[in-house]
Amino acid sequence: MNIRRTYLTPGPSELYFTVQDHIRAALRDQIPSISHRSATFQSIFRETRETLSELLDIPDNFHIFFTASATEIWERTIQNLVEEESYHLINGAFSSRFFKIAMELGRNPQKIMAPDGQVVDLEKIMLSETYELISITHNETSTGAMHTMKDLGVLRKAFPEQLIAVDAVSSIPCAPFDFNDFDSLYFSVQKAFGLPAGLGVWIVNDRCMAKAESMLMRKRSVGSYHSLPSLWAKALKDQTPETPNVLGIYLLGKVARDMITRGIKQIRNETGYKSAVIYNAVEGHPTVRPFVQKKENRSQTVIVLEVDGDVEELQGHLAKNGLVVGTGYGDYADKHIRIANFPAHSKEQFEMLADLLKDY
Amino acid sequence: MNIRRTYLTPGPSELYFTVQDHIRAALRDQIPSISHRSATFQSIFRETRETLSELLDIPDNFHIFFTASATEIWERTIQNLVEEESYHLINGAFSSRFFKIAMELGRNPQKIMAPDGQVVDLEKIMLSETYELISITHNETSTGAMHTMKDLGVLRKAFPEQLIAVDAVSSIPCAPFDFNDFDSLYFSVQKAFGLPAGLGVWIVNDRCMAKAESMLMRKRSVGSYHSLPSLWAKALKDQTPETPNVLGIYLLGKVARDMITRGIKQIRNETGYKSAVIYNAVEGHPTVRPFVQKKENRSQTVIVLEVDGDVEELQGHLAKNGLVVGTGYGDYADKHIRIANFPAHSKEQFEMLADLLKDY
Repeated sequence: MNIRRTYLTPGPSELYFTVQDHIRAALRDQIPSISHRSATFQSIFRETRETLSELLDIPDNFHIFFTASATEIWERTIQNLVEEESYHLINGAFSSRFFKIAMELGRNPQKIMAPDGQVVDLEKIMLSETYELISITHNETSTGAMHTMKDLGVLRKAFPEQLIAVDAVSSIPCAPFDFNDFDSLYFSVQKAFGLPAGLGVWIVNDRCMAKAESMLMRKRSVGSYHSLPSLWAKALKDQTPETPNVLGIYLLGKVARDMITRGIKQIRNETGYKSAVIYNAVEGHPTVRPFVQKKENRSQTVIVLEVDGDVEELQGHLAKNGLVVGTGYGDYADKHIRIANFPAHSKEQFEMLADLLKDY
Repeated sequence: MNIRRTYLTPGPSELYFTVQDHIRAALRDQIPSISHRSATFQSIFRETRETLSELLDIPDNFHIFFTASATEIWERTIQNLVEEESYHLINGAFSSRFFKIAMELGRNPQKIMAPDGQVVDLEKIMLSETYELISITHNETSTGAMHTMKDLGVLRKAFPEQLIAVDAVSSIPCAPFDFNDFDSLYFSVQKAFGLPAGLGVWIVNDRCMAKAESMLMRKRSVGSYHSLPSLWAKALKDQTPETPNVLGIYLLGKVARDMITRGIKQIRNETGYKSAVIYNAVEGHPTVRPFVQKKENRSQTVIVLEVDGDVEELQGHLAKNGLVVGTGYGDYADKHIRIANFPAHSKEQFEMLADLLKDY
């Protein structure tokens, strides 16, 4: 017998409510068999980009491209937007990995690191003019340390010349990003969009396109099929350079439409409510507490709790009730649990989880 | 009303018979929600690699890695296996595109080109010792010009020092490759495996691993998360560097198992039978003929036919009977049709197609 679990893991995570129905429809309509050079694909590509633009309120000077993962976008960002030097705000393992990729690609990245569970204090940033790109991770999936939206605005204002790239992997579409605050934003779909893994989304403005074009003109390598100029040349025809994850692009458009219908404001309100339910439940708890001290930096979408005693026992306790939560990241594997709070998760599930935590 | 079509397009193409059932089972078992760092994922990863090894008779000195597409593997091949010079046998648009990627990545590739509809005559290859890698496309999806298996053996014997990379995109698992004939072989799953697009498979031997390691030691960039050393480090733990297309990896293992059960020999016999049915049907046909002149180089899996008169009319004629065939590639869009002959296509469908062609 299969017991249906609810995956509150920080990604891959629970599928959005409507995904199964959309997969069924896609199979009925033979979407996986259509050519990626056909008019049917072009209309799927267009629809997904338009629906995402509507859902996320993306301005006209931004372009939406598809990759295989957010990890790939780290590589493409360095290849296309950084000739020599990038600057990385590091608030956990994933922002740190992006820094490492810049090194592996032969650039000269610099970093400023926050202690685990904190974000970088923007006051401390000292930036030479030679840095071409600033990387900031809005919401660290490893520690739950989240920058405020205000931070993003402050960063933009302080550094109008540099390109700013925002890792929105585990907070979009729940966090209300203002596209005036950055030049590049990226995410993958297996987190808050509640989709099967295998698709990254890269949203860049005209300044990024110009930078890549200028590197190309000066014979600097910007990669090959997934360089920004190559992605752009195909996107003009509503196509992709390679045979992409067609089903993934189709499903993303459908789920984005469902989220518009449900109301993005409502989704964001519920995200706030559900995270409050959990943080309230552990307030004053004898053995479980938020890892992030500063309230304004506590993630709404990846709630990381520090646990005294046996983490596996707590996970087992929750699993007996059908709730699968994530393990702590890296060295915190036996000290933390991580709870994803995505649109696929209901208020009822969070109220049940809160009760289980309180009683633990 | 939806009319069910049969996609005889050269990829994406018809899904393998069992794919829908496997997707249903995957959703029931919540495969898209499991963590890519979980034991469940590790066992899926292991199972898919083991099943593929069994199906394709892959020796122990080869390693199987997953990427997002075969296009990606072109890029990774150049990054990891070519420091300066690669040599490309070009028998159509796709082998030509790989050459272009080598240029875009700043290498110094050389090429030898066959006229459209032919393969390179191996006798004509003049290779300096400085070439590190030879690229050969077994089966050109653009023109249907196929190298014989004997060609691969001859190439290996003539150039034992160079790495040989085989594009098997549109012929595997129907063609019986001998892994002694090359060092690297790659394909994507949306062709003869009959799966949704979004997954590439890269099979490399120890010589390739050593080459990438040696480049890395000498501080040459081999890329980042999808370099061979990075793929290998994670594969040792039955994992991938990034969150991969988990569902795609799962489905590939299941379909490979189904093909083993059906019998790979049987599948290959049927492929031969079905291609013969079509080539026989157009023998002496007044307006339709094989584009590839030389019989031994006529592809079994991507049958390209030259059509006098209105190609769209012929396609419409077939479509009325539920059969969707591919358009000619590039400049041949209004001169050719391309017919995929994959394990997902039945003998009955091919007999019907043959009758329709004869009567045309």
